[in-house]
Amino acid sequence: MELIFLGTSSALPTRRRNHSAIAMKAFGEIILLDCGESTQRQMSLARLSPMKINKIFITHFHGDHFLGLPGLVQSMAFRGREKPLHVFGPIGTSQIIEYIKKLGYFSLNFPIYPHEINSGLIVDEEDYRVCCIPTEHTIPNVAYRIEEKRRPKFLKEKALELGLKPGPAFGKLQAGIPVKLGDKTIRPEEVLGRNRKGRQIVYSGDTSPCSNIIKLSHGVDVLIHESTFDKSYKNRAVETGHSTATDAAEIAKAARVKKLLLTHISTRYQDTDLLEKEAQSVFENSQLAQDLMVVEVTRSGD
Amino acid sequence: MELIFLGTSSALPTRRRNHSAIAMKAFGEIILLDCGESTQRQMSLARLSPMKINKIFITHFHGDHFLGLPGLVQSMAFRGREKPLHVFGPIGTSQIIEYIKKLGYFSLNFPIYPHEINSGLIVDEEDYRVCCIPTEHTIPNVAYRIEEKRRPKFLKEKALELGLKPGPAFGKLQAGIPVKLGDKTIRPEEVLGRNRKGRQIVYSGDTSPCSNIIKLSHGVDVLIHESTFDKSYKNRAVETGHSTATDAAEIAKAARVKKLLLTHISTRYQDTDLLEKEAQSVFENSQLAQDLMVVEVTRSGD
Repeated sequence: MELIFLGTSSALPTRRRNHSAIAMKAFGEIILLDCGESTQRQMSLARLSPMKINKIFITHFHGDHFLGLPGLVQSMAFRGREKPLHVFGPIGTSQIIEYIKKLGYFSLNFPIYPHEINSGLIVDEEDYRVCCIPTEHTIPNVAYRIEEKRRPKFLKEKALELGLKPGPAFGKLQAGIPVKLGDKTIRPEEVLGRNRKGRQIVYSGDTSPCSNIIKLSHGVDVLIHESTFDKSYKNRAVETGHSTATDAAEIAKAARVKKLLLTHISTRYQDTDLLEKEAQSVFENSQLAQDLMVVEVTRSGD
Repeated sequence: MELIFLGTSSALPTRRRNHSAIAMKAFGEIILLDCGESTQRQMSLARLSPMKINKIFITHFHGDHFLGLPGLVQSMAFRGREKPLHVFGPIGTSQIIEYIKKLGYFSLNFPIYPHEINSGLIVDEEDYRVCCIPTEHTIPNVAYRIEEKRRPKFLKEKALELGLKPGPAFGKLQAGIPVKLGDKTIRPEEVLGRNRKGRQIVYSGDTSPCSNIIKLSHGVDVLIHESTFDKSYKNRAVETGHSTATDAAEIAKAARVKKLLLTHISTRYQDTDLLEKEAQSVFENSQLAQDLMVVEVTRSGD
């Protein structure tokens, strides 16, 4: 599972930072979190294929978080895409998708399904689920949590003890299917360990520090939180519905996350050490994201 | 007068080439020719301010030529722009501007005037004029010619002979205003040389080779012509309404332009020498554009 930061700027792009977008490479696909202008080009720089995207999660409809959608969709169409694309976002998503479909001449040969979401479980796949929660910004913004589903450990010794032999029966039991052995039936729970927590990441989008983010990110492996300002701009952060590096770090601490990644950096910071250090002084395992930075999310031992 | 190539790719962006856009720095403003996705970021890389743009000329509504408009407009709004923006383009321009205004949440505090144009004189300013002509593509495309207006040379010796003294009178006559000297009136034509041709540039947008481009670009200083393919893809060029490097060079030759700049390069070319050499074998003064390349358009002696 890899997080690739495609854009880490805030409202305006800079020479070093593009508009917001994060690609998550996991579960055999690419999950896109926000899609600022030029996300398709950033993907090309990161050598990621847009054709591997099935789902895009937009936090809110400020231009710097979604204006890469029209170009991405048209390029997918140009490359002959046929498989559906799911776009999740707060209220307004369906209307935005309608406008996007009307921007100029192109042949759209795949369906785009808009999903207007607000809170709770919104995706439940075999390998992962996605939940969301509204946050506090100047317009509706939702934060997302992506959770890996992990199967319990297969207890090989126990299976052998029960008289099973390595082979297809092992696979069936691992997948939760009972297996016949002579006249008895072996139930999966007899050979499987306790449930294991999969990797979890949360992405805040734009938000003031709020209790909903703490709720959503409790104990997660990685919290990606916006950090538009340093603490000397606290008033400005409050006015504009954003967070400072200190705010983000306090959220990370309260939610007991394992790692905090800061993004959505105001154009006023050429040197971002200040922000990173400010966060680290509150929550040690903090790191400030750079464009095209790759973060491997490893499994914690269980 | 400078041409800054902001994007020189065709339908898809590559690691080296962004979508189509050319900034022309002249007459105290920036004139934008096409506005592919991420043009605002390319401008930031080229250290050009979007606030200096008053007029944008879109050749056609394929995404790679205009999808930078929404982000550019929203960033202008974010920076507090109040002065009007004029967007020229073929049929459909007004509708596109309407959709662009509805993309997400932002406060637009300046008017955007759409101008649906087809052919003839479309802009007549004090320092320059702009003409356009339709070309042959799969959808309506217009090519643009920008012409500098030059005042005739002021003949200082003649003015002194007539009894005038250097000072405000010189300026008036240069600006075309008659001046009283004792009881006689000096008419501007008495002290001005013949009319002088200003610099002229033409930009084709996407097109098959066509007579209208030759007509529009007759004798211009710089012809920027698309060159999507090399000549071995002539059939593909015909099918898709594009030109090869040879096509572009033959147009340049027929129109007797001074310099040909090739752009809109297919993603299939990693090495573009082939295209440049192909054009040069037909029309010597050919050059292939690269992203962020700057071309100074100098005045030819007169």
